[in-house]
Formats: sequence, structure tokens, C-alpha cells
Amino acid sequence: MNLKDIKTVSERKRFIEDILSVKLPHIGNFSLDEKMASSKNCENMIGAAQIPLGIAGPLKIQPTTHNLQPTTYNPQPTTYYIPLATTEGALVASVNRGCKAIRQSGGAYAEVEDVGITRGPVFQTSSLKQSLEFKKWLDDEFKNIQNIAQKTSSHLKLKKLGTRIVGKYVYVRFYFDTGLAMGMNMATIATTEVAGYIAKQIGINCLSIAGNFDIDKKPAWLDFISGRGKRVWAEVILPKKILKNTLKTTAQNIYNVWLGKCLLGSIMSGSLGFNAHFANIIAALFIATGQDVAHIVEGSMGVTTTEIIEDSLHVAIYLPSCIVGIIGGGTALNTQKESLSILGLKGEPKDGLKLAQIVGATVLAGEISLLASLSEGSLANAHKKLGRGNYRV
Amino acid sequence: MNLKDIKTVSERKRFIEDILSVKLPHIGNFSLDEKMASSKNCENMIGAAQIPLGIAGPLKIQPTTHNLQPTTYNPQPTTYYIPLATTEGALVASVNRGCKAIRQSGGAYAEVEDVGITRGPVFQTSSLKQSLEFKKWLDDEFKNIQNIAQKTSSHLKLKKLGTRIVGKYVYVRFYFDTGLAMGMNMATIATTEVAGYIAKQIGINCLSIAGNFDIDKKPAWLDFISGRGKRVWAEVILPKKILKNTLKTTAQNIYNVWLGKCLLGSIMSGSLGFNAHFANIIAALFIATGQDVAHIVEGSMGVTTTEIIEDSLHVAIYLPSCIVGIIGGGTALNTQKESLSILGLKGEPKDGLKLAQIVGATVLAGEISLLASLSEGSLANAHKKLGRGNYRV
Amino acid sequence: MNLKDIKTVSERKRFIEDILSVKLPHIGNFSLDEKMASSKNCENMIGAAQIPLGIAGPLKIQPTTHNLQPTTYNPQPTTYYIPLATTEGALVASVNRGCKAIRQSGGAYAEVEDVGITRGPVFQTSSLKQSLEFKKWLDDEFKNIQNIAQKTSSHLKLKKLGTRIVGKYVYVRFYFDTGLAMGMNMATIATTEVAGYIAKQIGINCLSIAGNFDIDKKPAWLDFISGRGKRVWAEVILPKKILKNTLKTTAQNIYNVWLGKCLLGSIMSGSLGFNAHFANIIAALFIATGQDVAHIVEGSMGVTTTEIIEDSLHVAIYLPSCIVGIIGGGTALNTQKESLSILGLKGEPKDGLKLAQIVGATVLAGEISLLASLSEGSLANAHKKLGRGNYRV
Amino acid sequence: MNLKDIKTVSERKRFIEDILSVKLPHIGNFSLDEKMASSKNCENMIGAAQIPLGIAGPLKIQPTTHNLQPTTYNPQPTTYYIPLATTEGALVASVNRGCKAIRQSGGAYAEVEDVGITRGPVFQTSSLKQSLEFKKWLDDEFKNIQNIAQKTSSHLKLKKLGTRIVGKYVYVRFYFDTGLAMGMNMATIATTEVAGYIAKQIGINCLSIAGNFDIDKKPAWLDFISGRGKRVWAEVILPKKILKNTLKTTAQNIYNVWLGKCLLGSIMSGSLGFNAHFANIIAALFIATGQDVAHIVEGSMGVTTTEIIEDSLHVAIYLPSCIVGIIGGGTALNTQKESLSILGLKGEPKDGLKLAQIVGATVLAGEISLLASLSEGSLANAHKKLGRGNYRV
Repeated sequence: MNLKDIKTVSERKRFIEDILSVKLPHIGNFSLDEKMASSKNCENMIGAAQIPLGIAGPLKIQPTTHNLQPTTYNPQPTTYYIPLATTEGALVASVNRGCKAIRQSGGAYAEVEDVGITRGPVFQTSSLKQSLEFKKWLDDEFKNIQNIAQKTSSHLKLKKLGTRIVGKYVYVRFYFDTGLAMGMNMATIATTEVAGYIAKQIGINCLSIAGNFDIDKKPAWLDFISGRGKRVWAEVILPKKILKNTLKTTAQNIYNVWLGKCLLGSIMSGSLGFNAHFANIIAALFIATGQDVAHIVEGSMGVTTTEIIEDSLHVAIYLPSCIVGIIGGGTALNTQKESLSILGLKGEPKDGLKLAQIVGATVLAGEISLLASLSEGSLANAHKKLGRGNYRV
Repeated sequence: MNLKDIKTVSERKRFIEDILSVKLPHIGNFSLDEKMASSKNCENMIGAAQIPLGIAGPLKIQPTTHNLQPTTYNPQPTTYYIPLATTEGALVASVNRGCKAIRQSGGAYAEVEDVGITRGPVFQTSSLKQSLEFKKWLDDEFKNIQNIAQKTSSHLKLKKLGTRIVGKYVYVRFYFDTGLAMGMNMATIATTEVAGYIAKQIGINCLSIAGNFDIDKKPAWLDFISGRGKRVWAEVILPKKILKNTLKTTAQNIYNVWLGKCLLGSIMSGSLGFNAHFANIIAALFIATGQDVAHIVEGSMGVTTTEIIEDSLHVAIYLPSCIVGIIGGGTALNTQKESLSILGLKGEPKDGLKLAQIVGATVLAGEISLLASLSEGSLANAHKKLGRGNYRV
Repeated sequence: MNLKDIKTVSERKRFIEDILSVKLPHIGNFSLDEKMASSKNCENMIGAAQIPLGIAGPLKIQPTTHNLQPTTYNPQPTTYYIPLATTEGALVASVNRGCKAIRQSGGAYAEVEDVGITRGPVFQTSSLKQSLEFKKWLDDEFKNIQNIAQKTSSHLKLKKLGTRIVGKYVYVRFYFDTGLAMGMNMATIATTEVAGYIAKQIGINCLSIAGNFDIDKKPAWLDFISGRGKRVWAEVILPKKILKNTLKTTAQNIYNVWLGKCLLGSIMSGSLGFNAHFANIIAALFIATGQDVAHIVEGSMGVTTTEIIEDSLHVAIYLPSCIVGIIGGGTALNTQKESLSILGLKGEPKDGLKLAQIVGATVLAGEISLLASLSEGSLANAHKKLGRGNYRV
Repeated sequence: MNLKDIKTVSERKRFIEDILSVKLPHIGNFSLDEKMASSKNCENMIGAAQIPLGIAGPLKIQPTTHNLQPTTYNPQPTTYYIPLATTEGALVASVNRGCKAIRQSGGAYAEVEDVGITRGPVFQTSSLKQSLEFKKWLDDEFKNIQNIAQKTSSHLKLKKLGTRIVGKYVYVRFYFDTGLAMGMNMATIATTEVAGYIAKQIGINCLSIAGNFDIDKKPAWLDFISGRGKRVWAEVILPKKILKNTLKTTAQNIYNVWLGKCLLGSIMSGSLGFNAHFANIIAALFIATGQDVAHIVEGSMGVTTTEIIEDSLHVAIYLPSCIVGIIGGGTALNTQKESLSILGLKGEPKDGLKLAQIVGATVLAGEISLLASLSEGSLANAHKKLGRGNYRV
């Protein structure tokens, strides 16, 4: 017998148990809708991994006042309990403390710009000359390309495209609005149609529908500079009292750590992440809410800033590429759907923006707490107390 | 009542259910050892996220012949079933096909170099002059520093250090051998002791024990160039017949896509990932086996190469920073431990190297399959068939 | 007496000779228009450095057929003798050989897109919220800003602007058409006026009129990705015979070197220059023609591509940021003006585009020749024969 | 008649004048030693470009106290007049002002570490397995390789090597001490010998003696992180009075501009240059003193830091890759030799370190002055007054 001939999750699990002489009772213990998970999310499924899920918060977010979007998605101050799935001891506790500091400071202000998900195919022409002509054709044909793309789904809009040429290679970056979905699949299907249209109209061949000009799940300055998915910002001013009582530090101490670590340290490392630990918070939120976990890569990029204002501290974060959705991917799985319900996100039209906003504010909480810990020298202690695994040091 | 006053997972879950008027039966349905998970991995725990777990393989790995390590850790050809936890439809199927192609081609060759986990504190001096003197002192004192560090754990060795100076800031990158553990916590504790020693001996202040010169969970050229955790390579030669029958493509077609996408596409994007989708495979393996998921960021960096040899195709991958462990972190959790048992990793001295080797060979399988799909234009179709979520297009 | 009290070049030279007991007869031997040079190009002038100037060519350039510009600037095939000022032995000979190969292959095709010179001030606001409002205001006010900018010079047009926000910092990248001038000074003056307008209208302070978002004279992905000054491309197909007779190599040999060096080598180095030696050619042409030599930095970025077509080799180059002018800067100095006259550039409206085109084709010649040398192992020999300085090895 | 058949500079000039109907009296007016220049520095020479040369200073440098080198090269405070060859109006004046501020503040402290010039060939093996074996062989054979290399010149020492592997490609970075010479030619010759030795011993082919792992004349994180040529640092503390009287600004104003421009601005641009304008100073000094001008690219990388200490300002610069020599290249040409004599560098054993030190301190002067200008809004004015070319705005 062979893996591919097995049709059910439990038989497949048994096959693995038998052939390897292992026991997998916990992997086999799950309540996910097996039919959905095994057909839409995971082939050759044998069960599920369980990731501990904790709660940080409540996290208070101020209403948005400047709207990068046509309509307001957050007209009232809101508070959220944040579901975080992680195996890294001390992380939830740390974010929780950051949420407390933000709450005590009146809440975070956070905003979202929907740049659009991108797909970046590469085309191969017969000459540089043809490459340049192709670029012009793409610009002239934009309306038709848009129509072709948008016929593939009523949930997808082609917002714009950008072209870059190197010799016979033409890279096109398509930006799509994909509504509540993260949208990579929709974008791929639409781009495939567009590529077919191009081939038919002018005979130029699409070498790869994904030409690393998206650029997907790889750290890249293009995503940092041009944005991808959603751009997210958040800020808060922490008064002296809260810095002292809740964060056990001072504005000056956090500022010094921030400058030496997030700016100069990352500069000396040749990094695209000028922050303390965006990736930790992104990872925990993405696992909990059914996002594509490999998009942590994009989420690790970005900048934290701090400024001392008298004895208070202004802290802000900027996420150039936050890639989230609330339908599609893993969002319909049972535990993930429950995490979205904890956040009150049930699929309303603006819930995608809200999720990005929550990500931004939670990332801000994480930055505040870790920078505070580092500035008072408590990181190692926190790990000693909370995060030690089952090995003796 | 307040979150922090609640002591058990189930009460905490109920509190969230009540306060938000939501139902969390699935998050509450888990078999993880609650005491361990809630004390060591996740504060404020209310349950667990379930991530579908599938199997790819078997994946055949050739014995290592050149040892970057003192002793051979893989003297026989071995085959593995690979546990992958993911919500991204088509991923397991894709890796599975790559494993098949590798298996049919006689197995992958994969090697690991243990660079060591790093911690990179930043120190602040009183002048550039003192910074330069401090660098010299660090070099002269290396033996003593090593002793201080190694007193913190019998499982930790300080391998070397590197220093960089910019004005009054001195960045030191400590490389640790941490045995079977990923080791960041051990490294942090050891570095904290060393920082204390430095302060006592010469009065130079550690501004931040984590100075982004580690550099941890942020994409960075320093990790790409100098390595972090383990460097991993893998290669295979795919004969024409397997390219045709299993992968539905040709050597030339894959080569063309690779050149246009993984090299030139990533170049045009300003990326550190010259590959097809390392991050996807890393993510699925890391979730399954209890790794620190934010280390996907480091794992997304690296290079795939291909070369046509007559009608065959040589494919190789290089992961400059693969950060894994088999004790500590999430590895002791029940489902994660089971995934490690699927891989036959029970904590033997060389099992950390083996895990890195498996990661490398699986990443190779993933690259082969996706590049093949792209080269025959089947990516969108695969997503249409396997990966579509529960939304209508 | 003191340097600043001296009014003439010769007295100043004498002062230095006397105070340091040195003789400077050669620095004192120059024919530059002293009044112009000492007032517009170089304060505290004591004379001139002499840089040997050689000729490569003729270099044949095909007519442009696809125009990224509104009108054709090169309707006929043209040939140029290229003035190169350099102290690096073997460089002129190498470029000369590249020109020969291109000439024998029918000439290079080269194209230019005038992206515009940029100035990128940084503004400081009172909050992230205000930063976001400011961005919107900038977009809404574009017409007025354009008017303000364009009042500062009849030779300047503001083409577009791009805004990026991080916390309280707002970066605006203004793109200017500055006619025949390289234009940084014009751009600075216009930006200063715009900053004054902004301050008056909405009270937001310009922290620095040059906020490294230009980004000027520093290697940066922003310039690579978004372009700065002019984008330039060139290509040629080298037939087998010319590869053999003129370049002493084969298509395959050059291709192999290119792949291993310009792509994979630069990838492993974390570079923005995926080429053999753009900077050498840019440097020699820039010194000869009076460009701002520090713009070699931007000119070192870019990509060379090659492809084997049967026994021929397609070679192309892409310069994302070629910053040149034919008026202003050093272009009016006597020897520099003569170099421009060698290129036939006397200030006609399209001569700026032509100069960029010549730079592109000359860079192509340089790439061809060096890659050929490397592929036949002759680099060290060339240096032994031609480039050895006055020291014994 | 044809360019290559002409033997003298004047005949060649006449040929160009005739064929193009241009007059080149100024290019023809030079006093460089024609025989040396035309044989060692510039083939097809027709004359020389004249670059205006001005003087900044005196610049005071404090004695070095911490020696990264075995012996002290600067035991006494020294003052230098700095020769700067430039066509960019306002540059010399700006550096001059920086020198004054440094002088008034007691002089700059500057240090140099001689990392060594690098050559980075790429080798191609038959498999990843062989690549790994080759790396081990290189480490084992280091002594022999060193001997081979050092036989090519009594002025050259092979300091160390570093190896990186990707598939069948092996990159080796050789670090050479080349005494007073910049050393690229020596390094190339030595590397060629080593490559021959490798081919003979183990049959592994050097694909390209320059494999962009040097990495030469291209911006690259490898050079930033690992250093190339010389690492240089400099610092000074500017008291309040000098900030006010000489620089017309305050510590706080410079600090604010620095943070917004050199750090956050360069971060937002994806740059490797976290400074105000290193490249300008490097360019002017390199042209004046006969350096390889394309090495401005490496010199544009680096970091400026500032810190407010009460009302004073600490300013420091870090140049990770300063590539200079005082013999070889253009240094023997007449005007260039005179510039070196202005600096008192006549070829003494430590003069190479001294030149790097002077570069560092002059770069510091340039940073101080431009940051001061920007912080008081005077950049545009300076350009209006000093830098305007011969065009009307």
C-alpha cells in the first residue's frame, strides 16, 4: 500500500503509525472539519498540530480619523482581546503588558492603506527593443487587461500595474484589490488569464506567472518600498507614569535602546527589519487567525520609531507589507474562525481593514513591551522565568 | 474579574466566551499537556489552534560523505516521511511530488554546517577611542568570556565572537553551540552573564542584550553572509525521464523559469530570497515540529541553483540560516513531539543536524516541484483544483 | 596670512607651496578658465588635477525605434569616439575592444527613459495622524506645488511626487525634469520654495531639504527600483565570428562567467551591482564630460544579461539611475566642454538623452570586453602588460 | 588611417580633431609625463582632463592612541591641508568649514584598520559534494596557497580567505596586504597564480578570477559587513560655541536632521549609505590623489552618528571600505603626486594608513558641515551663491 491510495485521514495516520512504529494519538485528536481541511488546506492529511493559544489585551484602538480608504471602518474607539498562537514562552505575557500600557495611555491610533496584493509574472521577449514596446503596449492596453482580469472573479479588481525591463525580461507587477480575501490565489488566476490574453494578442510568452516580482514570501526592498497587501501604521504616546509603573523604565531608556538596536543595530546587520520583534507578533496572530504563515516574512519588515516628548515617549510602528484576509486560506478552519470571532470579525466588508489595523496595534504593543524589557535588562529574566523549555541549563 | 486573575485554561476560555459572547468549542478542544503548555509556551492560554498536518514523502537522503561536523551523522541512505502543518492548499501535494522526483532520482545529497546560534548585544562606550579599545579587550579576554558564558549551561559553548564599531556603539556577535536546542534562551542568558562581567571588569554598559546584531527574526544580509544557526545545502540530479514523467516538464523549461524568476526576478525586487518558495516549506515543517515560527524569516533567505547537464537537471539549494532544535521551545508539546517521532528524532546527539538536513532536502523537494509547475504553467490550475478556499470566485 | 584672505589661484598655490615647502608646478599648469572654475566649481582653487584622457571607439549606435520620450532623438545610426578620463591602465583598451566588437556586430541598440532628477526632503509632523493628513494634502495640492516649483526656473518641471510615512516623519520624493542640466541645484532650489509654501500653508516644518529620500550619491534600492535621473538600456547580438576573432572567446564561455559572476557572485555578496564593472566606464566618462563624479555611485548599480542564441551571444545592460547633464556642473569647463564636443553634444534640446544613450552603449562595450577577458583568463595578463603602476612586484 | 595605428598623443589628438572637426586645445594642454601616462594609465591617450583643485583646511588630527596596527603611525597631532579636485561648487567651501569646526574643537580622532584588499574568484565544481570538499581542501592548504600567492610579489601578503558555496559554485574571498599600493592588480596576479595551483593540484576550474565576491566597485553588503581595503573611523566633539559661531546651528538641530536623514531617510530608501555625503569628499580626494575613482562606490557606504552631550555634539563617521594607496594606479602622475606631497605622503611605510586616516577625518569634516547647513536651511542658498553653473534659472 501507498500513501496516495489512502483516502481518509485516520487510515493515513494509521499507515504512518504502522510503517514507522510510532504513536500519533495527539495528531489524531482534532476537531477541524476534516473534509474541508483535507480537501482545501492540506493534502495527505493525517491530523493536526496543536499550537497553544493565549489571549493578550484588551487592546484599545482609537477611531480612525484620516481615511486612506473611501469610507471609515472604525468610527468608534474599540477594544479587542487578541488571540495569539505561539510556543514561545513570554511572548503572550509581553504583548499583554504592551496592551496594558497602550490602554492606560488612552489607546493606540492605527491606520491602514490597502495597497493591494500583487502577482508579478515575468515575460520573455525577443529583444530589448521588443521589451520596451511591450511596456508601452501594457500601458496602452490597461483597460482591456483590467477587464480580462476582473472577469475571473467578482471579488477582484486590478488596481494598477508597474513594469520593469532588463534585457529580454519584462517584469509586470499587478496590484489587485481582492476584498476580504488575502487574494494570492485569485491574483494568480487573474494573472494567468491576462498572460493568456497577452500571448494571444501579441505573442509574447509568459515565462513564469510568478516571476519573483510579486514578490511573495521573500524579504525584498520592492515590497518595503512599494508596499504589498496592506500598509499599516500605529502610534501611541506613553506618559511618564505608565513608563514607570507598567513598563518599569523611562522614556530615555527606551529611546536609547531603540536607537542602538532598531536603527543602528539593524543598519550594521544589513537588515530590512528596523524593529524589535515584529515577526513574533505577526507569527502568533497569523497562526491564530488562519493567515498564510509564510507571509510572516513580509511582516518582519518595517520600522519602529520613538521620540521623547518631555517625559513621555511617542512610539510608532510602520508595516509596509501586512498580508491578511478574513476569508479563504486557513480562515474557515474551526479554531481559526473562532479566533476571528474573538476579534469580532465575521466577514463584514471592512473587516479586512480592521484585521490589519489590529495587527498594527498589536505589533505596537509588542514593540513597546520588548523595548521596555531590554531597556531595564529584564529579557533574560523573563525567559528564565517563563520561557524555559524542558531542558536543564 | 480580570484576565490576569484567572488561573486555569478552561476558566480563561469561559471568561473570553462570556465577555465577548462567542463560542470557542474548538479552541477548547486540545490534548496538549496543559500544564506544560500554559507554563512554558503560552501565557494566558485559552486552548489551542489546530493546524492541519499532512505527510509528504518518502523523501530519500543520501549518506553524508563530506562532514563539516567532526563526526558523521548520516552514514546510511535514509528515507523520511515529512510532517507538514499548513493551511495552504496544494503545498503538501507539491512537496510530495518533489519528494517523488528526488526519490526516483536516487535521493538527495544534503549537508549541514553548524555555525551556531547568535546573540548580538550592543554596548555603549564613552568615545570611539574607547570603542576601539573595547574591541581589543574583547579579543584578548576571549578565554575568560568563554568561561563565563559556559558556566551558565553545560549544554552551551561559546564558539567565537565578532565585533563591529560605529562611533560609541559596539556590536558583538556571539556564536554559540547549544547542542540539540535551538538555543536563543540559553544564548540570551549566557550573553547576559558576559555583559555583567564586562560591566564589572571595565565598566562598559550593555545598552541592549539583543542589539539587532544577532540578528533575530528580521531579514538581514549579516545572517545571509555570516550564517546563523545552521547552514544547509542539498542537491539532486533529475534525469530527463523523471523530468518528463513525474514533473511534466523539461530541464530547459525549469532552467528558464529559474533564471528569470529566482535570479533576475529577485534581483529586480531587491530581495534576499533567490528561490521559489523556501518559506512555505520552512513554515510547514517548523509549525509541525515545534520550532520558533518567526524563524521562517531567516529560512526564507537563500539561493536555488539549476544547471542543465545534457537532458538532466542539477538542482541545488542553499539555506544560509536554518534555525532549528529538537529540545526546548515547542518541541516538547504533544503533537510536535509526535511529528519529531515521525522523523525518527528522539533526542540523539546528532538529531539536530539531522533535522536541519531534512529541512534542506524537503526545501529542495519544494523548489523542484514549484519550478516544474511554473515551467509548465500549472500553478494557477493547481490552486484552482486544490487550494481554493470557501469563497466563490 | 590665511587661506581665506587670498584672492587669486596663483597666490593661493604659492601660499601652500611656501607653508608646506612643496613644489606644485603641475597643479599650477592648467588652462581652465580660472574665473569660472574658481567661482563656480571650486573654492580655494590652487590649480587643477590632470587626468589622462583617452579615446575608445568608434562606437556605433543604432537609431532608437521605440521612444520612451515624446520625440525621436536619434533617428539615424551614429558613431561616436568616446572620451574616457582615467588613471586605470587597460580600461580604455578594454572599452575600445568592446566598441570594436559592437561595431562589427552592427552597432548597439540603446534607449533612455527620463525619469527625472529627484530631491527628497523630510518633514516632521506632530503625530502619525498628521503625517497621514499631510500626505493627502500633498496629493490634493499637487497643482499648486507644481506651480510653486516651476516658478523657480523656466527650465524645471515637477513631474510627480511620492510620499512615504514613518511615524512623525514624512518623506517626499519630488521628480523633476531639468532639461539639459543634471539638475540637482535647480531641484534643491525648487524644493526649498515648496517647503516654504508648505510651512506657510499648513505649518509643517521641513526637517531637511535633502532627507536621503532623493537618494543622492548613496547606493540605494529606492533608486534601483524607482529610477533616478535617466534609466538606460542597451543591447547587441555578438555573432560567433566576432566572439572568436575579436573577443577570443565563445558565447558559452562568456555566459558561464556572467552567470557565476554577475548574478550568483553579486547575490552572494549582497550587492546592488549585478554587472562586471559599470562603475569603471561611468567614472571615466563622467570625469571626461564634467559630470558630478560622486554620481558614479548610482551608476554602479544595474544589471547585465546574456543569452546564448545558437552560437551568438545576446548581451544587454540596464542602468536604473544614470545621472548626467550637458549644462551646469563641470560641463562648461574647457577640457570637459571639449570632451562633449568630441561627442557632438553642443546643447541641442535632445543632447541630454543622447549623452545617456552614449553612456549606456559604452557601458555595454565595457561589459562585453571584461566578460570576454575573464572568460578566457586574460584579466591578469592585461593588467600585467598595460596596467602596472610604477612599483615593482 | 586608424586610431590604433597612431603612436603619439599629439597625433592622436590631431586625428580626432580632424575626423570630428573639433578643436581640443585644452585637452592637449597638459604637463603629465606623457610616456608614463600613456603606457601605464590610459591607452589611446589624446591629452588630459583638467579638474579644478582646491584646498580645505588646515585639518587637525589627534594622535592615534589605540592601534589596530602593530605600530603607531601617527604619534603626534598633525595638521593637513586637504587637496580636493571637484567641479561641484560649494563642496570645498563646505569641507573647509568642517575643517575649521574640527580645528576649533581640538582636532579629530581617527583610526584605521587594514582589512586588506580582496579578490574573489568563483570556481566551478562538479557537484555540491565536491564544492564542500573543496572548501575543506582550501582551509587545509592555506599555508601552501599563501606561499604561492606571496611568490608573485614581495609586497604582497595573503592574510586570510573566506569561502562560500552555492551548489556547484565556490566563492573564495582572498584578503591581501599590499603595502602602500591599493593593490588590486597585485591581488589579481596572485589570485591567478593560486587558481593555477588549484587547477593543477585538484583539477577544479576557476570560472572567473573576479567572481564579484571581491566585491569590487559595486555597492555590496559583503564589503560593508566584512570590510575591504581599510576600515576607517573618526570622531570629534563640537562644543556649543563652535556649533553656534562656526556652524550657525545647535547640537539639537544637527541631531534632528541626522536622525531624520542619515538614519530614517536612508532606511526608507533601502540604502547602504547612512550618511550625508561621504561620496562627495571621497570623490574629490580620490581624484586629487590618483586613486581609482570607481572606488568611490565603496566609499559611499558607511554610517555617521551624532549624540548630544549637554550642549555639545559628538559626531563620528565609519567607513567600512576605504580603498586607497600611495603607489601604483594614478598616484605617480605629476599632479596627483603633488597632491600627495601636499599631504606630506612620500611613500614612507605608514603613509597608506595615514592617507586613510586623512580620508576619514576629511569625511568627518564634510559631514559636519553639510549636516549643519541642512539644519539651518542654508543648502539651497549655498548652491545659489557658490554652485550655480553657467545656466540661468
